[in-house]
Formats: sequence, structure tokens, C-alpha cells
Amino acid sequence: MKKVLFINGPNLNLLGTREPEIYGNRTLADIDKALVEQGNALGLEVETYQSNHEGAIVDKIQVAARGCHGLVINPAAYTHTSIAIRDALLVLDIPVIEVHLSNIHKREPFRHQSMLSDVVTGKIIGLGPYGYTLALAAVDHLISEP
Amino acid sequence: MKKVLFINGPNLNLLGTREPEIYGNRTLADIDKALVEQGNALGLEVETYQSNHEGAIVDKIQVAARGCHGLVINPAAYTHTSIAIRDALLVLDIPVIEVHLSNIHKREPFRHQSMLSDVVTGKIIGLGPYGYTLALAAVDHLISEP
Amino acid sequence: MKKVLFINGPNLNLLGTREPEIYGNRTLADIDKALVEQGNALGLEVETYQSNHEGAIVDKIQVAARGCHGLVINPAAYTHTSIAIRDALLVLDIPVIEVHLSNIHKREPFRHQSMLSDVVTGKIIGLGPYGYTLALAAVDHLISEP
Amino acid sequence: MKKVLFINGPNLNLLGTREPEIYGNRTLADIDKALVEQGNALGLEVETYQSNHEGAIVDKIQVAARGCHGLVINPAAYTHTSIAIRDALLVLDIPVIEVHLSNIHKREPFRHQSMLSDVVTGKIIGLGPYGYTLALAAVDHLISEP
Amino acid sequence: MKKVLFINGPNLNLLGTREPEIYGNRTLADIDKALVEQGNALGLEVETYQSNHEGAIVDKIQVAARGCHGLVINPAAYTHTSIAIRDALLVLDIPVIEVHLSNIHKREPFRHQSMLSDVVTGKIIGLGPYGYTLALAAVDHLISEP
Amino acid sequence: MKKVLFINGPNLNLLGTREPEIYGNRTLADIDKALVEQGNALGLEVETYQSNHEGAIVDKIQVAARGCHGLVINPAAYTHTSIAIRDALLVLDIPVIEVHLSNIHKREPFRHQSMLSDVVTGKIIGLGPYGYTLALAAVDHLISEP
Amino acid sequence: MKKVLFINGPNLNLLGTREPEIYGNRTLADIDKALVEQGNALGLEVETYQSNHEGAIVDKIQVAARGCHGLVINPAAYTHTSIAIRDALLVLDIPVIEVHLSNIHKREPFRHQSMLSDVVTGKIIGLGPYGYTLALAAVDHLISEP
Amino acid sequence: MKKVLFINGPNLNLLGTREPEIYGNRTLADIDKALVEQGNALGLEVETYQSNHEGAIVDKIQVAARGCHGLVINPAAYTHTSIAIRDALLVLDIPVIEVHLSNIHKREPFRHQSMLSDVVTGKIIGLGPYGYTLALAAVDHLISEP
Amino acid sequence: MKKVLFINGPNLNLLGTREPEIYGNRTLADIDKALVEQGNALGLEVETYQSNHEGAIVDKIQVAARGCHGLVINPAAYTHTSIAIRDALLVLDIPVIEVHLSNIHKREPFRHQSMLSDVVTGKIIGLGPYGYTLALAAVDHLISEP
Amino acid sequence: MKKVLFINGPNLNLLGTREPEIYGNRTLADIDKALVEQGNALGLEVETYQSNHEGAIVDKIQVAARGCHGLVINPAAYTHTSIAIRDALLVLDIPVIEVHLSNIHKREPFRHQSMLSDVVTGKIIGLGPYGYTLALAAVDHLISEP
Amino acid sequence: MKKVLFINGPNLNLLGTREPEIYGNRTLADIDKALVEQGNALGLEVETYQSNHEGAIVDKIQVAARGCHGLVINPAAYTHTSIAIRDALLVLDIPVIEVHLSNIHKREPFRHQSMLSDVVTGKIIGLGPYGYTLALAAVDHLISEP
Amino acid sequence: MKKVLFINGPNLNLLGTREPEIYGNRTLADIDKALVEQGNALGLEVETYQSNHEGAIVDKIQVAARGCHGLVINPAAYTHTSIAIRDALLVLDIPVIEVHLSNIHKREPFRHQSMLSDVVTGKIIGLGPYGYTLALAAVDHLISEP
Repeated sequence: MKKVLFINGPNLNLLGTREPEIYGNRTLADIDKALVEQGNALGLEVETYQSNHEGAIVDKIQVAARGCHGLVINPAAYTHTSIAIRDALLVLDIPVIEVHLSNIHKREPFRHQSMLSDVVTGKIIGLGPYGYTLALAAVDHLISEP
Repeated sequence: MKKVLFINGPNLNLLGTREPEIYGNRTLADIDKALVEQGNALGLEVETYQSNHEGAIVDKIQVAARGCHGLVINPAAYTHTSIAIRDALLVLDIPVIEVHLSNIHKREPFRHQSMLSDVVTGKIIGLGPYGYTLALAAVDHLISEP
Repeated sequence: MKKVLFINGPNLNLLGTREPEIYGNRTLADIDKALVEQGNALGLEVETYQSNHEGAIVDKIQVAARGCHGLVINPAAYTHTSIAIRDALLVLDIPVIEVHLSNIHKREPFRHQSMLSDVVTGKIIGLGPYGYTLALAAVDHLISEP
Repeated sequence: MKKVLFINGPNLNLLGTREPEIYGNRTLADIDKALVEQGNALGLEVETYQSNHEGAIVDKIQVAARGCHGLVINPAAYTHTSIAIRDALLVLDIPVIEVHLSNIHKREPFRHQSMLSDVVTGKIIGLGPYGYTLALAAVDHLISEP
Repeated sequence: MKKVLFINGPNLNLLGTREPEIYGNRTLADIDKALVEQGNALGLEVETYQSNHEGAIVDKIQVAARGCHGLVINPAAYTHTSIAIRDALLVLDIPVIEVHLSNIHKREPFRHQSMLSDVVTGKIIGLGPYGYTLALAAVDHLISEP
Repeated sequence: MKKVLFINGPNLNLLGTREPEIYGNRTLADIDKALVEQGNALGLEVETYQSNHEGAIVDKIQVAARGCHGLVINPAAYTHTSIAIRDALLVLDIPVIEVHLSNIHKREPFRHQSMLSDVVTGKIIGLGPYGYTLALAAVDHLISEP
Repeated sequence: MKKVLFINGPNLNLLGTREPEIYGNRTLADIDKALVEQGNALGLEVETYQSNHEGAIVDKIQVAARGCHGLVINPAAYTHTSIAIRDALLVLDIPVIEVHLSNIHKREPFRHQSMLSDVVTGKIIGLGPYGYTLALAAVDHLISEP
Repeated sequence: MKKVLFINGPNLNLLGTREPEIYGNRTLADIDKALVEQGNALGLEVETYQSNHEGAIVDKIQVAARGCHGLVINPAAYTHTSIAIRDALLVLDIPVIEVHLSNIHKREPFRHQSMLSDVVTGKIIGLGPYGYTLALAAVDHLISEP
Repeated sequence: MKKVLFINGPNLNLLGTREPEIYGNRTLADIDKALVEQGNALGLEVETYQSNHEGAIVDKIQVAARGCHGLVINPAAYTHTSIAIRDALLVLDIPVIEVHLSNIHKREPFRHQSMLSDVVTGKIIGLGPYGYTLALAAVDHLISEP
Repeated sequence: MKKVLFINGPNLNLLGTREPEIYGNRTLADIDKALVEQGNALGLEVETYQSNHEGAIVDKIQVAARGCHGLVINPAAYTHTSIAIRDALLVLDIPVIEVHLSNIHKREPFRHQSMLSDVVTGKIIGLGPYGYTLALAAVDHLISEP
Repeated sequence: MKKVLFINGPNLNLLGTREPEIYGNRTLADIDKALVEQGNALGLEVETYQSNHEGAIVDKIQVAARGCHGLVINPAAYTHTSIAIRDALLVLDIPVIEVHLSNIHKREPFRHQSMLSDVVTGKIIGLGPYGYTLALAAVDHLISEP
Repeated sequence: MKKVLFINGPNLNLLGTREPEIYGNRTLADIDKALVEQGNALGLEVETYQSNHEGAIVDKIQVAARGCHGLVINPAAYTHTSIAIRDALLVLDIPVIEVHLSNIHKREPFRHQSMLSDVVTGKIIGLGPYGYTLALAAVDHLISEP
């Protein structure tokens, strides 16, 4: 059974509790649960992980992604500053989808730049938690191609 | 029956004939046909349009989008330069998804900037023609929300 | 009888219908009609033209402006990007007034730059449709000077 | 009777004496006199003021503008550097028109930027002393609107 | 008895009358009076001064600060542009505290830069008139150190 | 009893031992002890925390600050680079004071920019450990206002 | 018989009528006629095309260039802004020569940058209409190489 | 008898009292006296003026320079920011020498730029008060040329 | 016996397993072992450490480096972003050598800048694992100088 | 008999020996010989010169070009940095053609800028040694014009 | 007898022959002769040198300047690019005056920057050959000071 | 016997005589002698060369390096400006080590950029003359690899 890892970066553990008018009132646990179920329906094992620590995310990519067939990552604040996460992703040779819940291009200028954009397969931006659903579909599509 | 318009910008009429190793060998007609079918399955009318003319795309957004419930646009080269298309989009109050087939962040620096990013609902980048499929799903999701 | 040409750029055909709280509820047809009447009172023939196409605006400047004694242009989105319109204006040796309805300096930074500013005679900014009235008065003043 | 204040910045007291081929040979006194007469015809009291001192212009805006219904300002050299004048204008809630006699966009690059553009109602540029005439008409128009 | 000078820059004479929702409704006279009283309690003579003129502030720093043991300055708009005030401060060898009532980093980008930051002892930003109170305490602390 | 949290960033655990001619010879433990006592005098509970880990500081802001009525933070090196800390602060709705012991504007240019300045209430810079004393006074002042 | 296409961009239809002291008094028709004759002498079919419309130039490159063995293009104003023309050229695998009649490096700074320079085979600048003659010779040379 | 005006900008009234190790211990009065004597020896009337006020310097240039045959100006801090002084100098058609006592290129970067450099005849930098002596010699040389 | 600490930053634990054509197939354990042996031969104790966590590297520099006589650091991705590591190094007064295995100047532009270059003793770049050998020799040389 | 000088800059003496897949296998001697023959056919004396020394090229332009009627120069590396060569060219009043063998716009960004572009008559880029042939034809054309 | 060396950079050997309306019709030999005479009058030996070669100027500074008591240098084009000349000057501990005949600030922007400004004693700009006269006076003044 | 060439750029002939506190008191001759001896011990012939002339260094690289197996270059001032040296190095296919005696990153910003970094094999910075010793060891290591 193929496995897909979801990694969420700093402050995303607060989803559903902060600024619900922007991010909705679904918690990260709710979202993770739905992704596991969507994975089951697609015949995919889904693992989820969240950390506020850049180094811990690097560790996780190194350790867990070796046994994975796809990676979905919402690096949150580290999107714009982490070369360490970029370097960890560079080692992978599986599809990687970068997801952002809000449309980062409507926010501060420093959020418009990503250190990761050119090392991921694709990006999905601004579609809320539904972006994770699409990302899982995309990974499934990519790893099913002959 | 709700309607979704797909607009493709300059040189996308060459899909399937140019650089097939990058863009695949599906023509724009093939892709449009599949989107109409996906729309039928979702209970949505899908209209498709392509032009190499910036002004014609502005005209089309003005005329056609008034009767539409969602818009998916791949502005191609005009992504990076057209304030006129930006202004036309600003008038809309329906979901708009910006799609790019290739990962534009792996290409020349001038392709990393978009004049449209902050006036669309969301973006899907780097997933090939499957990006249109996800975009139609996203529009369906957005216009189905209570 | 001397002739003055008014050229309006992309999306200005929507005047009166979009964002009336900003642009007022006078349509472009209403404004054009009032300018023709103001021209009559000044003994000037007024012709008006609008297009969303950069090339069509270049064509119009070339063809029509040859027989004109003054030009008033609101290039809208093309203000900030069109060297082609700039080059077309460079050929003229009649007064040219650049008009903007809203105060573009209160808007996005890319609207603060104009490709045309240094090739026009003067600029009127931020005074709504009354800016056209002043521009016609200015052209009349300039072509009446000995 | 409503009152409109005209403020002219540094070196404008030399009008009519310096570079007459550019600025014409009307002195500032001539221009001020004509504006008072135009005001009379419109039922408006016109006051004029000139200073080479940034602080004195700030003082004048604070003191005099409180009793005024409109302000026309040609800040000359201070246009490009004075945050103090900007802050003084920010307190006003009457129409303010920024006027420049020459087309500043044909001159040195540092004259293309204005510290005031986004805090005034509108701008009139490049039309010589006639720009003051149009500005007074514009103020009259703006304060006559219901 | 040691003496502390407070200098307030352009437009701060309007405190309490402009934008009270931002700056509160205490006038500069109120604030000055409270500082004199706080000074008395600390055994310090407090002198206050306000001007809209850059040159006058330079004059004041030269003349008055010679007999002072500390200086608190809110240069307002001149913070961002005045090298002359910077040069005047460079001559002093007493503690100088730069105060800003509002958090200037939440405002326009040109307010984020200060010509004075690296020639003052310390800065207090965003705490309203209470910032002056803290600044006087800081001066007292600094000049009391052995 | 209201609670105020003090967070100190990387390398501040070395206070009193490194570069005493700049930072003085008070250790962080000494400073923390004095703040607790000052808090007692004001009727406030003071908690202090230091870490060299960006992620740990994010964790601490999330966990501890929920029960706090004010936050004083000296983010040290993370001031200039951490969007993650910025995002954690964005969730808070209590007064936050950013403190820097030295005048960072006298140091390297990269220390002049702060990722946090526009999301905190106020800043106190360059006053040594006395800056913490003032910051606690400021928090007390802000949370005591009606 | 091999075919070479010449494309001229906006405002070049005015050649011979505008600024003859700069561009000479040969019209575009004269120049085109001479190129056809030069082509005949070389055994090459020469087709010429001019448009003020960016989209029309893209259309022409797509349609006509497929049957051509060489392309000479003077994109005029679109040189500096058109990514759409760049993308159309990217599809070609024939020699492409970019020509500019005047020395664009003696003109405004925005004319010094070209969006096309790195996707053409070579450039000829500043030699007037004789540049077209050299360009045709160059294409002949390039397509004659073994 | 020909007349030469010396204008000194802000803080130069402190010469001889501040930082004598840099600027020497000659006061401005000493320097002015020596220049008058040097002028006498050359058959030139020398007038000297100093002000901390930008506007006053503009006034002085307008009033006094009309009757002068040469101007020597050390604009001090206003060198780098004053467009008003630049505009006042633009009206003059006599030799103007810009003097700086210290080598401004060894100081902060913002002192390396001058708003006046391209409107003066020449510059003398870094030679202390002796620079005024050379400047007077230069003016004498320039106005003595046939 | 003198001690030298080697610190390796994020993703260097993957040496020998990722991109062996670039980095060779020696693992970090192999390299560390060889350095310990080289140290023995030189009469130096060598300790090695690797972490993906910026904070952990700061901790290690603080704790371990106090008892060391030299430090060799390959900060990998943190080279370009970590002010915290820079600040930790600033406290040291022993030789510090910065090593990069690959020639970072042949890679992405953001890898050309180092936050650490001006606080280390020297740098060795582009010589693969042999760079560590040279760095240990350099430390030995530096600490052996009288 | 009119004379044309060809100057080749640093490293061009290696033509035909380095990177033949880029520059072809014709040596500079071969190319020079062909140009002399082409000159003979046109009735022009052709002199050729190569140096790796910037100063020697300046010397050569000064000495030799005085008796020449045209100059063709491939400044190679000095194109981008030599103001001295620019100044030497500024003195000439004969046609000067700048030639580059490869398309420098496909290479490193620092090769896109030329210190000479705006002081030469025209440029020919990217056409290999055939560019010299075209340049000689262009010089012949320019000096034959009435 | 003290010695002063004058070094002139590239193309200054053409003085008096090129652009006499700008540089006058005195040759470098004339100027050098006059400086030797001025030196005699002051009791100074004057040596002059000119070269178009950057390396030769470096050689000359190294060899000749060791026995000199002052240096006057007009580096011409190398002013803006030569770090090698800067480094050679850095070794000197005698007064060095940088001279420019024309006002370089009225010319191209790249002439406004000097690589040497902050390592020379002073600068004299825009006063023609008389600038050398003043420079020699300045050197005499500087080396005569106690 | 394999040969290694050492090239030293401008002003390095002064080593040991200028700024001995920075560069030590070993002359270049001393250093060269030690390198020849180190080469003998390694079985390598060492040739050394120094010049202040950019062109001479290019000549030397072309002529001498053809018979060499390794090159060590300290380009000194030309590091930051010479594209000609870069181009000469590009032709080589032997190991090239760039050495700087001082840590250039602690010096002026223009010394932080190198035109050569991405065309050399490796760099050694800040280790004084011992850097040459390490460079020779590195070349020996590189040319000894199978």
C-alpha cells in the first residue's frame, strides 16, 4: 500500500481556533482525519505531522519520506525563509505538492516569495483546507501515471 | 444549470504540438472536451476560449463572465504583464482560479511574478492538464458551499 | 472646425456599471455625450473612442489623430505598460492631455508609474469625469494660444 | 462666502523673471490677481500665499486652511521631500488640488516622485499658470457637489 | 538642578485636536504640564519646545541643549529626512531619547527609516504620550548612574 | 492576579558573561529576579523564559501567552528573520512590547530590520536591562487603562 | 524555394513619414520591395508583415513561420514588454534575427532591455534599413551552412 | 568692485567649538575674516552668511546673489536633501563652487550623494577651511577669464 | 591536550547517500573518523557534531566551544540565514574556519551570501571532504603560532 | 584608399583552439585573412589588431584610428567594464561597429551590459565570424553614403 | 627639495586636441610645464606622468611615490573601476589630491561613483586645468603644516 | 614532473613591506621560495609570477598554464572586476584554487564579490600566507585522485 505524508509547519496546530473567519473552524485534527479517510478511499495510507520547529520538519522529511510515495507540505512561515527544508526536499524523488490555505499573494510582500517553489512538483494556493483534498488527488494522479 | 468559463492565453493553442516532452501530447481540443465531460458529470456547463490577443481576453471576460458562476484562467504570457486582464477580473464577484501547466517557478525569473495573483481566489501550478481538472473541482466546491 | 479626439482604454466601457461608489453612475455614453455638447459650445468637434485592445488604440491614434488638433487620452491599464502607445503619441505634434478618473497614487504601486507621462503635454488626475471637462478646456486653451 | 487658499512653494516668487521661455512672463502677482478675479466670478474668496520655508508652509496650512473650503498647492521643490507638509495636509478634510506648472515627468528623475500624491484629491500637471485656473474650477466643482 | 529638554517636531502642536481616536485627546500643553510635574517629583527641571521649522529645531538643540543634562526628542516628520537635526545631535554628549507616539512601523514605508536612530541613546515607540513619561524616567536613570 | 510573560531569544542566556563592557555584568537570572520583584510591587505575576530555539519560542508563545495579560519579548537574532514568531504573535490580543538591550541601529544593517515591528504594540531600544523595567511599566500602564 | 518572413511591429508602418531625419525617407513599402528583390537575387522568397497588434504578431509567427526557413523581426515597442512574442519564438527552430533601425542604447533606459534577446539567433542594431539587408544576408548564410 | 558671496549651511556656526580634532579650532568668524582679507587682496568684496534654515538659505541666494559675481556654498546637511536650494541655484548664471570641509566620502553613505553637484561649476572637498581659500581663488580665476 | 570541535549543519547527515556524484560516497561517519585520526596524529582531540536544528547548533557552540581551542563549522543551509549562529560565534575568541564542500558560488544566488563570513577567521570552499582536512591543518597552524 | 581597423580584445587570440563547438575552428588569423580579402574586393584597406591589454587597446584606438575611415571592435571581456575604451571611442568621428561572436544575452547577466553600446554606431551580435563580414559591409555602406 | 608627483590617466594625453570647447586648447605638455614652473616658485620639484595602462599607473605609484611628499592624480576612466589603483594608494601616507577637469556629476551616472574618493585626502572637480594649480597649492599647504 | 603555477595580482609585490601587522613580514620572495620547497617535497615543480597588469596576467594564464597541472591564483584587486581573467580561466581544464590572504568579507563591500568564484575549483580565504600552503596541498590532492 502506497503512503503519502502530510507535513504542516508552525502555528498550523492552531487551525480552527485562531481567526476562524479566515481559516474556518475545522481543526487540524479534523482535517487530518478527513485526509486519512480520503486516502483509504483511494487505497493510500496517509500520515500527518505538524511541528513549529524547522529542524524537526527537516528530520521528519529525512526519516519518514524515504518510505513515502508522495509528500504534501504546507511549510507556513518557513516557506519564505527555510533553505534547510529546501535542501531536505532536494533529496526526494517523489511528487511533492506545496499547499497554502490562504492566498498568500493577498498578504504581506515577504509572503509572496517561496524558498521552495522551484523544488516542488506543484503548488495549490488559496483554496482553504480543500487544497489538501486536491493535493492528495494530485499525488494519487501523479503516482498512478504509467 | 451553472456555467464555468475556461480562458486560455497566448500560444496555448499550440498544446500537444510544441515541446510534447514538457506539455504532453494532449491538444487543447482534447483537454477542452474532457473538461466539458467533467462538467457534465458535475452538473455544470463548461465553455472554453483561447486567444493570443490581450484585448480579446479582456472582451471575453467582460462579455461571457457575466453569465458565469466560475472562471478558470491560464493567462500564459499575459500573467506577468497584463494590468488590463487584472482590471477585468477585478469587476467579477465569482470564484476565479489561475492555472499554470508547468511550474513557472522553475523557469525564468520574470515568470515568477504574476499581475493577477492577488485578485484571484486561488492558484494551481505545475500539475499539467490535470490542473484544469482540479480547478473545475475547486470551482464546483466553492460555488456549492452554503 | 477644429477637432478633439477622446480615447479611453480597457475596461472603461464598464463605467457606470462597475464600482459606482468609486466611479459614479454615469456611463461612458453619458460622459461622451456631455463632452460633445461642451465641444459644441466651444466651437470644437469632439470624437470619442474606446477599446480594450492596445493595438487598436495605436491604430486609432495613427489614423484619427492626424486630422485632430488635440487629443485627450485615458489609457487605463495600458498607462503603465504600453510603449507602443507611447511611440504612437511621440509622432503627434498636437496637445495631448492624459486623464485618470481616480487618484492612481492612492492605489497599487504599479499604477504610480506611467509610460506616457513624459510624452504628453499635461496630466489631470483624480477628479472623476470632471477631469475630461477640464481636459477639453485645457485643449481649447492650448490651441487658442497665439 | 466660501474661501479657497492657494499656497506656492520655494522659488515660485521668481515666476515671470526666471526662465520666461519655460514659465512665461506672468509674475506670481499677476497670476494671484487673476485667481482672485476668477474667484469673485465664482462667488469664492481667494487667498494666496508663497514661502520658501517648509515650516512656514506647514504653519500656513495649519492656521489658514481651517477656515477654508478648498486648498490648491504647488509645493515646488518640497513636493518631493516634505513629509511635514504631507502630515499637515493629512489633517484637512477639504478638497486639495496639487498643481505643477511644468510637466515634472520631463525633468530629473527625483522630480517624478511626490510625497503628497496619495493624500491630495487630485493633480493637474504641465499646463502652466492655466493649471491654477483649472484647479480653482475643480475646487468649485467639488465643493458644489451635493 | 539638572535640566531635561523636550523637543517636539512639526504638526505635534495639533495633538488632542487631530485624529483623537489615534492620538488621544490630551493636548500638547497637557502633556508638557504633566512632564514638568513628573520632573519636579524626580528633582529635574523640564523645558518643552515645539516647532514646525527644521531650522528652528536645529537652533534650539544648539542653544538650549548646551545647558541640559538630557534630551527627549520626537522629531515627527523630520525623523525621516533631516540630516541637519542629526548633525546637531551629533555634537551633544548627553543622553538623547527618540520618542514616537504611534508605532511608525505600522504606517507608510518611508516612516520606517530614521535619520537619527544611530545617533541617539535609545528609542521608545508606539506607547502614546506615556512614551514621554518613560523617556523622562530613562533620562533620569541614565544621568543618575555612577 | 494578572500575569506578564518575558521571553528572551538566542544567546541572551550569556548575558553578564559576554562583552560585559557592552551588556553590563548583570546575568539574565539577576534581571529576571528584579523583574519578578518589580511585578510583585505592581501586583503582577512575572514569568520569564529563554531559548535558543525558534520553534521553542513559538511553542512558548502559543502555550503560555494564552493565560497572560501582557508579553515582553527580546527576540534577539530572530527579530530579523522569524516569520514563525511573527505569526505566533499575530494570534495574541494582549499588549506586546519588543525590547532590545543595545541600540540595534548602531550595528550591522541587517539588524535594522525587524520582522515583528508592525505586529507589536510598542518598542523600547538601546536602554540596556532598564528597557525591561520600562517595558513592564508600559504593560502595567496599558492593561490598567479603562 | 526557401522562404524568409519579415515581421515589423507597432508604428513601423509610419516609416518614411515620421522623423525622416532619424529614420530616413524610405517608406516601409520601399524597404519591403527592396528586400523581395534582394531575396530573388539570393534565390529566397521574402514575405513581409506589419501590425500594431501584439496578438496579431503572435498569430503570424505561429501560422506563417511554420513554412519559413528564417525569420527577421523588428518588434519595435513590443521588444521590451512582450512575453507572448517571446513564447511564440521559443517554438521555432529556424534562425531568427532581431533588428532595430536606431541604436536603442542611445535612447531611454527602458529600450535597453529586450524580452527576446536570449531566444533569437542574433541581433543587428543601429544600422537603419540597411540592417534588414544584412539580416537577410545573415539568414541566407545560416541556412546555407551544411 | 566685484562681489563674492559665501553661504554656510546648518551647524557650521559651531565650527571651532565642536570636534576640533576634525574641524580644527578656527571659528567661522575667523574664517570669514580671512576670506574678506583675501578678497581685498584680490580686489573682490566678500560677503558671508550662515543659517540653519533651508528656507533662509533659499531667500539669501535669491536676494543677495543677484548682485554677486560668484558664489561659494557649503550647504552642509542640506547638500544631500535640498531640492529647494538646487532650484534657487538653477536661476543663477554666475560661477558657483560647492565646498565641503571634511572628505564626505569617508563618512556615512547618505553623505556621498549631493543634490547640487550637477548644477554647480565645481567642487572642492576634504581640504578643511583651506578649501574656502581655494574656492575664492577659483571664483577669481573664473570671473577674470576673458 | 587541545581540542577542536567540528559542527555540521542540516542535511549533512545524509552525506554519502545523497547525490554521490557530487558529494562522493563517503559518509559523515567515515569523514568524522578520519578527522579524529588526523587529530590524533597532530596531538589534537577532535569532537564532531551534526544537527538539523539551528537552536541545537547555537546550544552546542555555547556549551562545547568554551573548552575548545578551535572550531570548524559547515553551517550548510543556515550559512545564509542564521543570525543566531552568527551571534553565538561572536562570543568566541578562538580560530573558526567555515567550510563548504561544494563550490557554493556555482549554485543558486542565495547561496552566495553568508551571514557568517565576516565573523570567522577563514573559509575553505569547494574542495569536498578534503576541505575538513585542510581546515584541521589550518586550526593546528593557527593555534601553534606563538 | 580608405582604411578600416579591426580590434579584437582579450582571449580572442585563442579563437579556433578553445571551445570549437561554440566558436568554430577558424583561427583569428584565418578570419583576419578573409577580412583583408573582403576589404580588397571592396577597395578598402583592412588592418587587424588583437591584445589582452586594456591600455594597449586604448593606445591602438588613439594612434591607428586617426588615419582610419571605419572601426570594427570586438572588445570581448572589456565590453562590460572598460570606461577607458569608451572614452577613446568618444573621440572618434568615424563609423564604429561593435561585434560579438556569441549571443551574449544567452550568457551570464554581467555580459548583458555594455559600456560601449551608446557610443558606437551599431552592433552585430551572435552571428559568429560572419558578424565581422557583415560589419565590414556595414562600414563600407556607411562611408559610401553621400 | 620636496617632490610632488602628478599622474594622469587614460586619454588625457589627448588634452588640447579633443573636444577643445570642453577641455580648452592647452595640451598636457603645456599644463605639465606650467605645473613645473608653479612648483619651482613654491620650492617644490614637480614630476608628471601619463599612461593609458592601469597596471602602469599602479607600477608608477609604487615606484615613484615612495620618494614623493605629495601626489595629485586624475585617474580619468579608471576613477570609476580601478580597485588596483585604490590599493596602491592605500599604501601611501602622503597627501593625495584627486582632480577631475570636467564636472563629472553633469555626465553619465557611472562617472558619479569613484573607487578612490574615500582613500584620498581631498578632491577638486570641474575647474579645468586650473584644478591642477589649486591641487598643487593644496599639497603645498598640507605638507607645510606643522 | 607535474607543474603548478602561482599567480599573484596587483600590489602583492609589496607583501612584507606594507601593513605588516595585517599581512605579516614575509616578503613575496620568501613565500615563493617556501612554495618551491613544498613543491619539491611533493614532487611538484612550482613556478611563481606576479604582475600589476591585468593583461599580463591574462597573457600568463594563456601561455604558461597550458603546460601546468594546477593553478593557484590570488588576483587581488582584479578579483572583483576582471572578466578578462575570468575568460582566460574558463579555457583551463585543470584545478584552479583562488586564494585571499586576508578575510575579504571583513573589508569593503565591493571586495565581497568575486568575478571568478564560479569558475574556480575552490577558494581559501583569510588564512594569510598559510593559505598558499594549503592551496598547494589541495592541488596535489586533486591531481593525485584517480
